[in-house]
Formats: sequence, C-alpha cells, structure tokens
Amino acid sequence: MNYPTTINNLIECFKKLPGIGSKTAERLALATLNLPDEVIDVFTDSIKNVKTNTKRCKKCNSFCENDLCDVCQDEGRDHSTLCVVEDPKNVILFEKVGTYKGIYHVLDGLISPLDGITPDDINIESLLKRIKNDNINEVIIAVKPTIEGETTSLYISKLLEKEKVTVSTIAHGIPLGSDMEYMDSLTLEIAIQDRKRISENKE
Amino acid sequence: MNYPTTINNLIECFKKLPGIGSKTAERLALATLNLPDEVIDVFTDSIKNVKTNTKRCKKCNSFCENDLCDVCQDEGRDHSTLCVVEDPKNVILFEKVGTYKGIYHVLDGLISPLDGITPDDINIESLLKRIKNDNINEVIIAVKPTIEGETTSLYISKLLEKEKVTVSTIAHGIPLGSDMEYMDSLTLEIAIQDRKRISENKE
Repeated sequence: MNYPTTINNLIECFKKLPGIGSKTAERLALATLNLPDEVIDVFTDSIKNVKTNTKRCKKCNSFCENDLCDVCQDEGRDHSTLCVVEDPKNVILFEKVGTYKGIYHVLDGLISPLDGITPDDINIESLLKRIKNDNINEVIIAVKPTIEGETTSLYISKLLEKEKVTVSTIAHGIPLGSDMEYMDSLTLEIAIQDRKRISENKE
Repeated sequence: MNYPTTINNLIECFKKLPGIGSKTAERLALATLNLPDEVIDVFTDSIKNVKTNTKRCKKCNSFCENDLCDVCQDEGRDHSTLCVVEDPKNVILFEKVGTYKGIYHVLDGLISPLDGITPDDINIESLLKRIKNDNINEVIIAVKPTIEGETTSLYISKLLEKEKVTVSTIAHGIPLGSDMEYMDSLTLEIAIQDRKRISENKE
C-alpha cells in the first residue's frame, strides 16, 4: 500500500524543486491536503501561469510584467550607472536594500568552461551594445565571488578596457556583524589587502 | 521594485506550507519558473485535485481512492489484529516496513486538552464499534510517545478494559543504530525499566 496516485504525483512534483527530498516532499504534499480552497486556487493558477506571465525587460533582462521593468522605466534613476548581476533575483535583492539608484543588466548566468557556458551563452553582447549606445558612465560588476563569478568579472573588464567607462566591482571582505573567527583565510586575505584608509600618518 | 504579481502569489502560496519561510519560498517559486511544461501540468492538476481525489477508507479511515483501502480489502491480512495510529501517514510508514500483517485504525489526531481536542474530536467511537463488532483479538496502540500520545493511549486502554481484547503498545526504548550518549534521560529510564530478558539465572 502506498499513497493514492494524486498524492504520489504531488510528491514527485515537489521533489523536482531544489533542496526538496523525499521526506520533505511527502510532508509538503500532505500539507497541501489541508490548504483552504482559495489558497489551492491561487496556487494552481500561479504555477500554471508563472512562466507565461513573467516576462523579461527588453532593456536590462530582469523580471517584468510589461515590456520594460520598473527600474528601466523610472526617469528619476541614474541611467548612466549600470550594475551587472547574474540573475533577476539579484536585482530584487539590491532593490530591497533601496540605496542603489542606477540601472541594472542581468547576465542570466556566469561564464563556466567546466559546465560549457561560454560568454556567448550569457547576455554579454547586449551589455556591450548598451554601453556603446546608452551613455553609460560606470559599470559595477556585482557577481558572486566564485571561480565562475571571477572569470565573468575578468572577461567583462577586459572587454570594456577600450570603452569610455569606469569599471568597478562590489567590495569583498568581512560581512558586517559577522564573527572574525569563522571567516575563511581567502576572505581574511582580501580583507587585509583591500583595507580602507581611515587617517594618514601626519608626520 | 518587487517580483511580478504571479511570482509573488506563488511565493505566498509556498509560504503557507509548513517549514517554508520567505527565503525558501522565493527559491522554490523561482525554481518553478524553470520546470518543464509537463511537470507544470502534473503539478497544477495534482494540487487542484488532491483534496477531491483523496478519500478516506470507510473502515479504517486511512487514505484510499475508492471506498475501502488496500489493507482493508486484502483478505490475506490478519483482520483480528488492529493497529491504532494517529494519521494516515503512519499507515504508509508501517506498510513501507512491510512486516505488520494486521489492519489499521486511523484516529486523525490525538487527545489534547490544551488544544481543546477531546476524545469526541478523534475517531475513538468508531474504534470501539469496530472492536465490538469485528472480532478483534488484539489492539496495538502505535501513537507517538508525547503527552498527547500517552493521554490518548491511556484513554483507549481504559476504555477497552471491559472488552474482550488484548491491548498492547509499541515498544519504547533506544532506537537501533543510535548513540547512547545522545539519548534523553526519560528514554534511558524506560529502556532499563522495559528491559528484555535474554537468559534466566539457572541456579
């Protein structure tokens, strides 16, 4: 004896999501049984329509519901500063912080020779086009500091060497509020190396 | 700027499931975007129909797709031994082990005065009816060893005192393969108290 077919199907679907194993999938499927009908309706509608309703901004490639995203449409933002991120989730992350007033460019991936992802597979060509045509003054590369991130960062900065733009990368170092003891040696190394001067020797 | 409405709705739905917080819900919703269309179809159908397609067995109250569950329909099983469990999930758990050959009775909850759950709120009346009418020989109470479980177990055993049935409870003690060091004192106490004799003093 096993679960009825519909519950089994639901368990299999939950298992397709990242980080969800058999036990969790079972728990989630059984919990779905107890959801109120109105939640069930929104749930099925959302899953059914999430792919078709979620478009990508024609300019920066982040999530939007129309042709352009809210950031690209906003006249009040600094359209000469461009922040390059890996995926649309990062745009939402920075927007939640709320202090960055420039615009974005979503790469949709990072260069990874091991996984066969070359510069042609991510949105680097459209980035170059924007920089050439859109009066961009500064490009901030904000990708994660992994091998793939560093490779992508290096590739973009090499590519932009001849363009009239300032290229910068987000600061790496000790996160605020964290315990020094638990930091890895590479982060500690870069924290010393990229130290910030507070005052000068006045002698 | 935030996620498009459909993604936001999906995040809210995932958050309604137990153990899913904001960050996980976000991750799951974004992963749903990348699911193949055929999985999306099965997923929406399953969520939509899981409540209506999942019936409860008219005899034992566990999950089934028709009127009676596979266990109750199985003539080969021992219909005189009845295992009392908290919910349908436990039936599947025991069935996966595969050694128990009796039938089940699903209480659908445990007595919990603090949460206002009285014996009338769970399927104890139908249990009594089955014991009186169905030639039950032994009742095995297999509920979790918490305050609620112990209360329910005690209530059922008191109720069955006058009936012609053997009442037993599943064994409590040290789980196989576990480290004694990490056991709580109550479990250690019960493990000593309920010790199993291996050989007798032959003097």
